[in-house]
Amino acid sequence: MIRVTIWNEFRHEKTDEAVQKMYPEGIHEQLATVVGQNYSVKTATLDESEHGLTEKVLKETDVLLWWGHIAHDEVDDAIVNRVHERVLEGMGLIILHSGHFSKIFKKLMGTTCDLKWREDGQSARLWNVNPSHPIVAGVGEFIDLKQEEMYGEHFDIPAPDELIFISAYPGSEVFRSGCVFRRGNGKIFYFQPGHETYDSYYNEKVQRVINNAVEFCAPTENSRPYYGHYKGEDRK
Amino acid sequence: MIRVTIWNEFRHEKTDEAVQKMYPEGIHEQLATVVGQNYSVKTATLDESEHGLTEKVLKETDVLLWWGHIAHDEVDDAIVNRVHERVLEGMGLIILHSGHFSKIFKKLMGTTCDLKWREDGQSARLWNVNPSHPIVAGVGEFIDLKQEEMYGEHFDIPAPDELIFISAYPGSEVFRSGCVFRRGNGKIFYFQPGHETYDSYYNEKVQRVINNAVEFCAPTENSRPYYGHYKGEDRK
Amino acid sequence: MIRVTIWNEFRHEKTDEAVQKMYPEGIHEQLATVVGQNYSVKTATLDESEHGLTEKVLKETDVLLWWGHIAHDEVDDAIVNRVHERVLEGMGLIILHSGHFSKIFKKLMGTTCDLKWREDGQSARLWNVNPSHPIVAGVGEFIDLKQEEMYGEHFDIPAPDELIFISAYPGSEVFRSGCVFRRGNGKIFYFQPGHETYDSYYNEKVQRVINNAVEFCAPTENSRPYYGHYKGEDRK
Amino acid sequence: MIRVTIWNEFRHEKTDEAVQKMYPEGIHEQLATVVGQNYSVKTATLDESEHGLTEKVLKETDVLLWWGHIAHDEVDDAIVNRVHERVLEGMGLIILHSGHFSKIFKKLMGTTCDLKWREDGQSARLWNVNPSHPIVAGVGEFIDLKQEEMYGEHFDIPAPDELIFISAYPGSEVFRSGCVFRRGNGKIFYFQPGHETYDSYYNEKVQRVINNAVEFCAPTENSRPYYGHYKGEDRK
Repeated sequence: MIRVTIWNEFRHEKTDEAVQKMYPEGIHEQLATVVGQNYSVKTATLDESEHGLTEKVLKETDVLLWWGHIAHDEVDDAIVNRVHERVLEGMGLIILHSGHFSKIFKKLMGTTCDLKWREDGQSARLWNVNPSHPIVAGVGEFIDLKQEEMYGEHFDIPAPDELIFISAYPGSEVFRSGCVFRRGNGKIFYFQPGHETYDSYYNEKVQRVINNAVEFCAPTENSRPYYGHYKGEDRK
Repeated sequence: MIRVTIWNEFRHEKTDEAVQKMYPEGIHEQLATVVGQNYSVKTATLDESEHGLTEKVLKETDVLLWWGHIAHDEVDDAIVNRVHERVLEGMGLIILHSGHFSKIFKKLMGTTCDLKWREDGQSARLWNVNPSHPIVAGVGEFIDLKQEEMYGEHFDIPAPDELIFISAYPGSEVFRSGCVFRRGNGKIFYFQPGHETYDSYYNEKVQRVINNAVEFCAPTENSRPYYGHYKGEDRK
Repeated sequence: MIRVTIWNEFRHEKTDEAVQKMYPEGIHEQLATVVGQNYSVKTATLDESEHGLTEKVLKETDVLLWWGHIAHDEVDDAIVNRVHERVLEGMGLIILHSGHFSKIFKKLMGTTCDLKWREDGQSARLWNVNPSHPIVAGVGEFIDLKQEEMYGEHFDIPAPDELIFISAYPGSEVFRSGCVFRRGNGKIFYFQPGHETYDSYYNEKVQRVINNAVEFCAPTENSRPYYGHYKGEDRK
Repeated sequence: MIRVTIWNEFRHEKTDEAVQKMYPEGIHEQLATVVGQNYSVKTATLDESEHGLTEKVLKETDVLLWWGHIAHDEVDDAIVNRVHERVLEGMGLIILHSGHFSKIFKKLMGTTCDLKWREDGQSARLWNVNPSHPIVAGVGEFIDLKQEEMYGEHFDIPAPDELIFISAYPGSEVFRSGCVFRRGNGKIFYFQPGHETYDSYYNEKVQRVINNAVEFCAPTENSRPYYGHYKGEDRK
């Protein structure tokens, strides 16, 4: 069974009434409900020791979900490096919403990961542009969200290895809102929905995508390739 | 000097008053004006002998522009094959607007090239999602068109080698409206604007993109690789 | 359970002693052994009525394997079109070895699919260049084949959506020998090994790759997107 | 005229006789000869103040070439960040040979950029797998180098945006030896040849590729997109 760890900054929920109301136990607990039916789930948050991401926890994690926003800078560089190494080793990583600006995502992308944004209470439509991909299995042509924060292009990322969703917003912005990246032995999925005051993680299609992505990002059985001085191997 | 041939179906202009008014000499003549300042230009149309695309014309063409719509089926398969071979040999090909459904584009893509469409007189905004690309040089963040036909996802093409533009429409559709493909020694650019009753080819940014694309799609000096039985070559 | 149909030209086996010795029941039967442990398997061959690929057979096929060589031209265009449509609808397609020159592969790619080749009884090493991909699960860094036909670059295909293997040959040729393509709702995997007089389909790693590829190419539950005139849908 | 800055670590040349003999004035001076006929050229080296890469120098650089090997760690992080920002702003970057392990390349890639290597005085053949690309204009099917260090897969980089060369080595290794990446407004080209004791930078085809790459990586006239809070813009 795939072992999922859900990491949440868990700050908005403690101070902002609208967020408390939307996610009374924290965004991580709602996400745990979303993926807990199919996978073995743990949670971890910023204010725990080592942010809850000890060597042991990461070693026992197949796929890590990441939600952060106002405290990206408080994430310790040593922990970021530890997560980075685990991704290259094969751990899947699902970066949600404002996690686009996390240290770990920026480190993996090599770019600023910046974008345009606007919190206006308006809707979003995420178009499926990759119909054969397992991440969109069962999702159909698009996902409608009554309210989602606008994230607009240019999104300063490398061209994704696989582009899955493109979002449309009423202000005529567009956004590459579902993107797959492969780095080392690891698979990464960026998924845009999840503003803290909106109900995106209660949406069934969003939930389906996150479950599909867990399955997709899970490591294969290959270990890391050999690197370094190589005397060669005789052909068999 | 890059030698451009502009191919136009040239049917709407003969029968539809709105089109006549917009493009009195034909869409090809307006396109000739667009690229004629920088490149050597010829035109060719469906009703000419061999559709104006003789062996000689194609041999002397570095980049071919293609506009077609209501008469795709009237294009002779032998001419389609001839263009196909020239593209693989290195000739650039710029497919405009409803040319997405031309025989040559479908043959090069291997898919239906189908899409959603709606002619509603509304606007389009084309977002530049590839800011380092020469095709968008001087174009800035987006192109606004007051009126353009809606083309919506899913666009049934292979994932483009380079995604350049994504369009937003007021109906909340999106579209991969600028796409680069490499096939054989040839470079292909699909560009969405150009509905026959709207003034897209008078738009300066659209004109800039088309000129940039001519430059980008022009062949390099490489000839086709060798194919077939290969005895190998000694390392020098 | 994934339903696999294995298509084989089945001509060499009837006339060539070396091939008879290697694959006494035909290449399709050896492939049936390879994938039959995990999946529901049927076979079909060129000389059957409709080449064994009736509407019914294809409708009930999730993944089609394709081996052909000397009789590509005998495959009926109507059947090629039927397979093409099923791939775009979502059926997986695994093209083996000299199937690179089949009508169906060329139609899906839009290019000549030509290459360099040499049958010299020498070895091949296929390097895994995509370690996070499910197709190489359990395969490790490379596959060694004592004997395989040399296929060399330039391979005239579109850049694959995912490059999985690169082969090295003693003559200092290289080849993109494992390539994933997505077309419509379908996933396609090209895999180089399988010259009719060599024992590649008895190699355990080759067998593992083919099984992984069946899993990977199987359709998801999505139906084809809507195409055509679109009045739009209200945001929910 | 494109302004090129050539950065060289310039250490081997001071201590190793074989390198002194091969590149008496330093690798940077040989590279300056290579690109100096077509472009405006400056050089910069590790032991200069700010490694020769002051704000002013970088601001006036369109394309930066980078050669480093034994002293990657001595490159100041502040300078690495400065180069990184300039690349995202649009400066081209050409990473040569052992520069694959430089801080700047690893920062831009987000991976270890590790590989297999062997210095055995044997040959390399670089196959052109992207015949329509301007970087290979005039280069033909392959480049033969009598001696080049073996760099072998797996090369721990993101899948390149454009794969240009694949190398073959006598030990049956392969390597993605010419790779284009786009990051922010910048274009990056990694090119494998250039071991310090071999004569690769005297090879005419290698020289042609480097010149082509300078042309390709030069910035376009677009400035960086707007990022941050966005009130939107009315459709015109």
